[in-house]
Amino acid sequence: MNTLEMMSELGRSARTSSSVLARASTALKNGVLAALLRQLKAEQAMILEANQRDVALAQTAHLPEALTDRLTLTSARFEAMLDGLQQVIDLPDPIGSITGMTYRPSGIQVGQMRVPLGVIGMIYESRPNVTIEAASLCIKSGNACILRGGSEAMQTNQALALPIRQALLSSGLPAECLHIVPTTDRDAVGHMVSMPEYIDVIIPRGGKGLIERISKEARVPVIKHLDGICHVYIHHQANLDMALNIAMNAKTHRYGVCNAMETLLVDAAIAAQALNLIIAAMHDKGVELRGCSRTHALFPESTSLAGHEDWSTEYLAPILSIKIVDGIDEAIHHIATYGSHHTDAIVTDDLPSAQRFLREVDSSSVMVNASTRFADGFEYGLGAEIGISTDKFHARGPVGLEGLTSLKWIVIGQGNVRGG
Amino acid sequence: MNTLEMMSELGRSARTSSSVLARASTALKNGVLAALLRQLKAEQAMILEANQRDVALAQTAHLPEALTDRLTLTSARFEAMLDGLQQVIDLPDPIGSITGMTYRPSGIQVGQMRVPLGVIGMIYESRPNVTIEAASLCIKSGNACILRGGSEAMQTNQALALPIRQALLSSGLPAECLHIVPTTDRDAVGHMVSMPEYIDVIIPRGGKGLIERISKEARVPVIKHLDGICHVYIHHQANLDMALNIAMNAKTHRYGVCNAMETLLVDAAIAAQALNLIIAAMHDKGVELRGCSRTHALFPESTSLAGHEDWSTEYLAPILSIKIVDGIDEAIHHIATYGSHHTDAIVTDDLPSAQRFLREVDSSSVMVNASTRFADGFEYGLGAEIGISTDKFHARGPVGLEGLTSLKWIVIGQGNVRGG
Repeated sequence: MNTLEMMSELGRSARTSSSVLARASTALKNGVLAALLRQLKAEQAMILEANQRDVALAQTAHLPEALTDRLTLTSARFEAMLDGLQQVIDLPDPIGSITGMTYRPSGIQVGQMRVPLGVIGMIYESRPNVTIEAASLCIKSGNACILRGGSEAMQTNQALALPIRQALLSSGLPAECLHIVPTTDRDAVGHMVSMPEYIDVIIPRGGKGLIERISKEARVPVIKHLDGICHVYIHHQANLDMALNIAMNAKTHRYGVCNAMETLLVDAAIAAQALNLIIAAMHDKGVELRGCSRTHALFPESTSLAGHEDWSTEYLAPILSIKIVDGIDEAIHHIATYGSHHTDAIVTDDLPSAQRFLREVDSSSVMVNASTRFADGFEYGLGAEIGISTDKFHARGPVGLEGLTSLKWIVIGQGNVRGG
Repeated sequence: MNTLEMMSELGRSARTSSSVLARASTALKNGVLAALLRQLKAEQAMILEANQRDVALAQTAHLPEALTDRLTLTSARFEAMLDGLQQVIDLPDPIGSITGMTYRPSGIQVGQMRVPLGVIGMIYESRPNVTIEAASLCIKSGNACILRGGSEAMQTNQALALPIRQALLSSGLPAECLHIVPTTDRDAVGHMVSMPEYIDVIIPRGGKGLIERISKEARVPVIKHLDGICHVYIHHQANLDMALNIAMNAKTHRYGVCNAMETLLVDAAIAAQALNLIIAAMHDKGVELRGCSRTHALFPESTSLAGHEDWSTEYLAPILSIKIVDGIDEAIHHIATYGSHHTDAIVTDDLPSAQRFLREVDSSSVMVNASTRFADGFEYGLGAEIGISTDKFHARGPVGLEGLTSLKWIVIGQGNVRGG
């Protein structure tokens, strides 16, 4: 059986099994997840051993250290994985909830019921804990799924497949509800994203290269996350202490995350005063500063001159670009031109400016007087985060369990007929 | 300029203009639509003349009569088009509404704001009134749009483009917010569905051939409507008078519509009694009946024997297939096997059976004791219907203005920082 045949067979059986999972009760789905929790605990030694083989291979192959680190499943990370699984068990079941039931003039009652999407395809890189996270979110939301982890995590993921299989079978569900693609052949990804008949949505998680490749090839809808070029804009009516706190948090709380600030915009009227504080504090943290010509003229020692490409670069590093703007119009225009529609914040005490910024900035998260670092499913109260979508179709911004669902219409009558 | 260059230019200018429309106030958008209403009235003679030229060409070319009929813009249809436009003006503006604002433990307030998708591509066939319907819905929802009507309606659509252009310009908006593709070159459609950088969603309206072609080629998300193979299932605890009424309405109220019943499923326990009534009434209406072997054995005179392909055929005609089933399991299984996930109804007085049917039937509309004919945006109270989606991603079933929107996250703080 070649890779295409294998992927088609996986797709077909996931599609068939998905209807069983779609109608499973909350108790049954939680039962599967509780069984998975028990099985993972029982099989911990076997799983960690498999992981050690993956890590050893990665080291032999001289894979980048950061990748090998993400690949490694320590006891602490294993515990965190189990905690995450328990959290998913504790989440409310989104499936079957009915909203908006209203009577229509015809006499029918109309509302919407939340239902699973069907089959989810998840494509991710080295972190093997994503396997359990994805599996638990799909089962909880009544979706079958096909998981394609990184090739370097192959043995770990195959080891994790066993407890998942046992948990499904022991609950009386078909094991085909959840597939872990058993090959490292890169063609498998190409086939997955080209099977709209078997897969309803693809969720890639990983580096930009992976996401771009998948977006380009996909014939199945994709919930994707591209760049996070986030801005903080300090309006001239900002509280400067607040502005300093927010700017520092947005840039320096963590550098390698998508919701970190990459460009600071400052109104000219308060630029000297605000930047005096912020540039000194950034300096103390060792952040490299690249300013527009006006910034560089004001602070020639502590900033270098930013190049045009700086405004559209996601540094993911202790580097910050700074631009002085002449008011909110220029700030909004700059964000529209160079931003990535991820997360942008204004610091201001002026209500009309806050209102304009909220309405006009076209980003998945728009903030007033808060750090961009809050753009996160857990911070937003979604319970679990499947990813952050930079698209607008279906789901935008942090995506929780609801992103794996759809709404169908339900109609209740007492024998009503149309035109009757 | 070739077709590809022209479509790219249209896309680019629509994308640029979309941000202006996205931040337009409700008053401004309603003002554009009111101006359009006035312009259409003023230009009625010119538009009807252009339409007569299209109709004359269609007749000369011996296009099918049904197509020429759909193409024809009579005074009455023109009035109905204006009424529809007024209805869109009267609809509430979905854009900017904020829902779910809650305080999180971190102190931030989080909620969601409804925003436009951006640029809508609409591809449709002969009916020129769709041009004004689509234009008004896109403007109301703050989306720029590119409309590609049928080549046989070219002169009518170009005539309609003038008042739209005047309405936008007189309100101070760029005319590029709304393009009507000025070519009959079929390649234009292929280019439209391949420009994710300029178009956020494609909505095709027309025959199955068009929709299938677009789904196959599209690199942009599509809100599409394929088959409507709708079922009515008469459970053994049904009120038989109600069952008769619903079955007759679902089949004979209109034949050529997607929410008409194509297959009747009847529980064996009450089949003879129920079908006695229904078959006689269908006969009176001239409906051709094709039964399963059990139905045909019971009614050999009034039914022919259905072939396997009947169960998956959307007749759109006075033809009905009938199958006797052994209870709700077989009914749900039949619908899952042969249905098109459009609209399916159960007639029953038994609550657990109604609950199971609602939950387990995976269709965009699932009904209890009501005619499938109710599956319609206006009947559901959406105010206007952009189409009926048979997909699950983004929108399912009748799609109103909300289908042209997305939700962005908004965060309001008082200087909050993460981990602080």
